[in-house]
Amino acid sequence: MSQSQLMPVEEAIDRLLAMAEAQRLHDSESVPLSDARQRVLASDLVATLDLPPWPNSAMDGYALNVGDWSGQPFAVSQRILAGQAPEALLPGTCARIFTGAPVPEGANSVEMQENVELLEDGRVRFKQSLTAGQNIRPQGQENRVGRVLLRAGKRLGPFELAIAAAQGCTHVHVVRRPRVALLSTGDELAEPGTPLKPGCIYNSNRTLLSHWLSALGCEVIDAGILPDRPQQTRLKLEQLQHAADVILTTGGVSAGDADCLGQVLRECGKPLFWKLSIKPGKPLTVGHFGTVPVISLPGNPTSALVTFGLLARAYLLRIQGVEDVTPLSFPMSVGFDWPKAGGRREYLRARLEAGRAILYPNQSSGVLLGASWADGLVEIPEGCTLQTGDTARFIPFCDLF
Amino acid sequence: MSQSQLMPVEEAIDRLLAMAEAQRLHDSESVPLSDARQRVLASDLVATLDLPPWPNSAMDGYALNVGDWSGQPFAVSQRILAGQAPEALLPGTCARIFTGAPVPEGANSVEMQENVELLEDGRVRFKQSLTAGQNIRPQGQENRVGRVLLRAGKRLGPFELAIAAAQGCTHVHVVRRPRVALLSTGDELAEPGTPLKPGCIYNSNRTLLSHWLSALGCEVIDAGILPDRPQQTRLKLEQLQHAADVILTTGGVSAGDADCLGQVLRECGKPLFWKLSIKPGKPLTVGHFGTVPVISLPGNPTSALVTFGLLARAYLLRIQGVEDVTPLSFPMSVGFDWPKAGGRREYLRARLEAGRAILYPNQSSGVLLGASWADGLVEIPEGCTLQTGDTARFIPFCDLF
Repeated sequence: MSQSQLMPVEEAIDRLLAMAEAQRLHDSESVPLSDARQRVLASDLVATLDLPPWPNSAMDGYALNVGDWSGQPFAVSQRILAGQAPEALLPGTCARIFTGAPVPEGANSVEMQENVELLEDGRVRFKQSLTAGQNIRPQGQENRVGRVLLRAGKRLGPFELAIAAAQGCTHVHVVRRPRVALLSTGDELAEPGTPLKPGCIYNSNRTLLSHWLSALGCEVIDAGILPDRPQQTRLKLEQLQHAADVILTTGGVSAGDADCLGQVLRECGKPLFWKLSIKPGKPLTVGHFGTVPVISLPGNPTSALVTFGLLARAYLLRIQGVEDVTPLSFPMSVGFDWPKAGGRREYLRARLEAGRAILYPNQSSGVLLGASWADGLVEIPEGCTLQTGDTARFIPFCDLF
Repeated sequence: MSQSQLMPVEEAIDRLLAMAEAQRLHDSESVPLSDARQRVLASDLVATLDLPPWPNSAMDGYALNVGDWSGQPFAVSQRILAGQAPEALLPGTCARIFTGAPVPEGANSVEMQENVELLEDGRVRFKQSLTAGQNIRPQGQENRVGRVLLRAGKRLGPFELAIAAAQGCTHVHVVRRPRVALLSTGDELAEPGTPLKPGCIYNSNRTLLSHWLSALGCEVIDAGILPDRPQQTRLKLEQLQHAADVILTTGGVSAGDADCLGQVLRECGKPLFWKLSIKPGKPLTVGHFGTVPVISLPGNPTSALVTFGLLARAYLLRIQGVEDVTPLSFPMSVGFDWPKAGGRREYLRARLEAGRAILYPNQSSGVLLGASWADGLVEIPEGCTLQTGDTARFIPFCDLF
């Protein structure tokens, strides 16, 4: 197959997202804040409380009404700590007030304690000119009742859950977890902890992907290791199609005779595409088996990593309703030469050092050590060459989880 | 206190890390790979297996010995699938071989199937010149037995756990979780789910920090909400010092009369520093109560966020043995003007758009919504002004978790 027949990455992502829209999960559930990290909001979180709920002091100091003041010292008529409900301010007096405490009715200004003089008789002299509103955080400065604080489709991390807590919520309304059946294929795969027979390797993709799926809010159904037998493959997919929202497989999708998963999908399923313009990861295959979507990643760990991170991740977030599925990326100066333009879009494991992206020395597609060493991926478009100091797109790994 | 007396952020981090070195956790445990995400490796992970364990084919094609070949067609003497142990290659023949399958003894080259012609008599004609080693991944290309794959102190994510699985490990040897007592202080704090009394606000810092602590591998001991009473504060700290490795508090550390936690630490404890050259977050206080380290964050959620992310996080990783505790950061062009130099180092919530960092409109220190909107923090050093297009350090949030 010539390079020109390969599908560009953007087109593959667009097709995957269209498929995800048709597969959106509509069930939702209420979960405690403590269990809601990495879940996706099912409905808008709307403020039921002004924040702050009342005007409050931004400083430790004295609250007064600047209209009462013409230079004379003020008696201190009350003392207001955070957590206390103050009395209305007696006209012509001030209130001792602390950071976060409610500003009493009748006061319109807070002077910080460093700028006042305490007189022997207990009164307070304001030494500088005062303006209305100073050092006061107005009621509703952060949000007013009715404001949409977080939109449906927002992924919930520590910040978002704290926003819900600040509204007094104990639970949030989230999309149910996608059930993802994770199926490793290949006669050569052995379970870690078992003896390694000649010609075999240990299955590492299941570990990679089950942790990654959890981080994306998915429930993982471990569907084990499948040998390269078309009949067994068909039976397994038939079983899984009723248990899972998505079947995620690794291995068995090259064009070789032994790649029976790819064959079964092409014969019995409805393949959406295969052969991507991506390196590593060209044999990614996406389709349906019966009604269930099947995303088949190449078996090589680095290929699985790149195609999961750039393609399957977007799909799995979108079925949960996440709008912005594009990973964080930014232009970065490269600390290497790339003299030979490639026919496929290439993703290289790189680390940021001294403001430049430098490459892991061994970019062979089998090497997970490079991913562990790296901070993320440098993207090199089809037909592109680079010289040291040129700029390329950098995608940090941390945002892919 | 004048700005010049404030402690620079770097010095505070250095002091915290020195304190962490003295507090390193030495106990470790063996945990299954499935439970080990976000834990820290207690000892080097050393390869017990060459990867690949045998030379294998990088292609679907035909394996032969190029020394046998002078242009004539070869008979196919065996068929080798991934997961099979091949026979030694019969001299003068070739073997059908598939991607990932072991290269048979006696073969030194693999030709991809696209470059051969299958003759009617079953023999194979190689159409292009062949070189020794082509399309073969040598044994041990990724790693050899005895190589340190991951150093003690490495944080374990999906990549690292997959590296362990590829060696056949079912468990990893990790540092025990730090036990962190999380204590919220302030008379104004109400539990989410309870009615809000006048003058009160809901506690959101506990939610923020308990999720964040979990993401850093910590075991969270919820020590509840503490009112602003010196005697109760002393008693609580006395209780917690035997249950926790670290006490993490929020609130009560400004200089005001109501900031009794700061007072108790200064009177009964050994404060290492307070008053940082950081905005938001100046009142961060660090010290010991008895023998237990106490890190006291300001109560304002954004101040808590910044000081936890930039300072407490580094401490909590280092006591687990993590060497590189500096968060990912990179130079980024800014899409805003910053005309007025500040006396403290300022951290602004910003989003990356079209290759520039743009600011959340409301940088008031109370606003968590800005953190949720943002991709990370722009750092503006003391005394620095910026114009649109200038470069500043950007710290993405994703790497702080």
